[in-house]
Amino acid sequence: MGLSEAFPMKGGDGPHSYAKNSTLQRNYLEVAKEVMKEAIAEKLDIGALNSPKTFCIADLGCSVGPNTFAAVEIIIEGVKTKYDQSQSLSSQIPQFQVFFNDHVSNDFNMLFTSLPQDKQYYAAGVPGSFYERLFPEASLHFVHSCSSLHWLSRVPEEVTNKNSPAWNKGRIHYGNSGDEVIRAYKAQRERDMDKFLQFRAQEVVHGGLMLVNCTFNHNGTHPSQCTCNLILDLLGSCLMDLARKGRISEEKVDSFNLPMYFMTPQEMEAAVERNGCFSIERMETLPSPRPGNGGNESLVHQMAARVRAGMEDVIPQHFGEDIMDEFLDLYRQKIREIFIPFVAKLAGGIEERLLLVLKRKY
Amino acid sequence: MGLSEAFPMKGGDGPHSYAKNSTLQRNYLEVAKEVMKEAIAEKLDIGALNSPKTFCIADLGCSVGPNTFAAVEIIIEGVKTKYDQSQSLSSQIPQFQVFFNDHVSNDFNMLFTSLPQDKQYYAAGVPGSFYERLFPEASLHFVHSCSSLHWLSRVPEEVTNKNSPAWNKGRIHYGNSGDEVIRAYKAQRERDMDKFLQFRAQEVVHGGLMLVNCTFNHNGTHPSQCTCNLILDLLGSCLMDLARKGRISEEKVDSFNLPMYFMTPQEMEAAVERNGCFSIERMETLPSPRPGNGGNESLVHQMAARVRAGMEDVIPQHFGEDIMDEFLDLYRQKIREIFIPFVAKLAGGIEERLLLVLKRKY
Repeated sequence: MGLSEAFPMKGGDGPHSYAKNSTLQRNYLEVAKEVMKEAIAEKLDIGALNSPKTFCIADLGCSVGPNTFAAVEIIIEGVKTKYDQSQSLSSQIPQFQVFFNDHVSNDFNMLFTSLPQDKQYYAAGVPGSFYERLFPEASLHFVHSCSSLHWLSRVPEEVTNKNSPAWNKGRIHYGNSGDEVIRAYKAQRERDMDKFLQFRAQEVVHGGLMLVNCTFNHNGTHPSQCTCNLILDLLGSCLMDLARKGRISEEKVDSFNLPMYFMTPQEMEAAVERNGCFSIERMETLPSPRPGNGGNESLVHQMAARVRAGMEDVIPQHFGEDIMDEFLDLYRQKIREIFIPFVAKLAGGIEERLLLVLKRKY
Repeated sequence: MGLSEAFPMKGGDGPHSYAKNSTLQRNYLEVAKEVMKEAIAEKLDIGALNSPKTFCIADLGCSVGPNTFAAVEIIIEGVKTKYDQSQSLSSQIPQFQVFFNDHVSNDFNMLFTSLPQDKQYYAAGVPGSFYERLFPEASLHFVHSCSSLHWLSRVPEEVTNKNSPAWNKGRIHYGNSGDEVIRAYKAQRERDMDKFLQFRAQEVVHGGLMLVNCTFNHNGTHPSQCTCNLILDLLGSCLMDLARKGRISEEKVDSFNLPMYFMTPQEMEAAVERNGCFSIERMETLPSPRPGNGGNESLVHQMAARVRAGMEDVIPQHFGEDIMDEFLDLYRQKIREIFIPFVAKLAGGIEERLLLVLKRKY
């Protein structure tokens, strides 16, 4: 599995694992919870689903838990309430089968070990990229994807090509890069998004819902002004600092790029429109969760832990085992000196989310 | 996960892994292949299955591959041929979804990594004991279980209880034990088999098939005369030898019992009859596969490798890390001195198999 194909979160349940460092993602889910419940109550037409004996849910990009289990519980409660409140269908509450999907390199062993004891559904794991077909035709009633759709299927080819005008020298992402690099990333995002929607349109039953919760960039805002891009730009500048100190080679930095893109709501709408099989039932931004108590130092710690959970396999693999501590020290420093003053000026908080409710057209 | 609940095969793909040491199991599948194809051709009534868009297959006790993938291919080819040859249904060949099931402690990461690139089905992993409900009601069209149903859900309680007449002192299995121990094992087998059939009856659609391929003991034969029991008895006597040498404590051997039972065809029939939801469409013994070239020493090596793949986690966990090499040396010696002369006198070969084709009644 190449660098460009999958960045699994740190597996297992050790102190640096994703399972132990996904509180921020959990907070996003808490913020989304009420909107998810409302969306199911208002937009899921259970009468039109042909009374399935089994209601099938897929969580795409589930990672290793525990957030995926919490999301699934919210969805199942919402669907059950919907049945309970229906006069004609209250006696036909279906069984639930939940498909937890992530890359084949995800730690499914850990995911399965931590499945809730009291779960009210039949669980299955589905390995594979969600930019490919994963499920039989018309087999899913509800698709959920949280904190996953900013991942691209690969780094756009041009940005690692020395002879291309889109060569991304000295950077690992597009936020502060030239227009050619941004365009290459955007084009990759469009190709991937088209595949994502095309395959989901095949897998989701008519009338089924798809709920996407993702980090985004505001319409009309330059990517460099998006907090998520700033975070990635800081990671890149830490690596360049290490290159300047001679700790790693500059060529290594040049050849390293992160396959992530944060869409704007406009770009999201355009993708749904190009695909044509889904209607946008709801699209809104969710407020940023409070960073928690403890002030700035707590935030610095939280953000370093998050990078560690997401990058601890990837960075050493590309740059060697030894640089991780120095890299994280530099990163903490830049969070203090650049990121915190930047977000202090923002109205919207550290990382707003876009919540999109799509319905598979009939 | 306690000793009594799951004995996962050695994960990963190292030299002692199950993936690299399951040739014998593969040979059983080769022997079964023609019967499997015939059973599908003759016994699967595709016209009665309500033209499913997706034909769902479960392999129960799949371990880490590659045999599970080979079995699934045989089944899918058989079902496709059946559709192809049907005048009215040849245009309605369904999609296939395959659920690979094993204990939660199975190495699903390895299983997923080794999924065939050219597979013609949607794959999912389902963690959990097959002595529990695993799937939604009436959601499976074909269930396969090979080399798994000799596992019990637990060691029968009485055999580890010093105050019980069924206490299994100095042995790790029932093959050469007294009648009380045999009865305790048999009762556990009946309870487990009843659960297995009860849950499968709920999960398999009416008209769906279940194919069980398992090691068995001949009707009317004392368990000690079954080659599989002899193998386990030899493992026990190796441990007792180590206890006599003071390398491990005798109490440790007394408290260690293997949760396996080899049914007779009569016991199998009785279980299906007690359950009442399945008809026995076919039940036959399969010839033992040839042990391969290389003569006796090759067989010794093969059997030691197999024990290692099955027991390398379990034995050290119970008896300590250090004894494994000595234990395997003793085992090889007993295979040479006791097992090989024993099987030389057998008509049926080393390990015959029982193949059972059940149909879920309408």
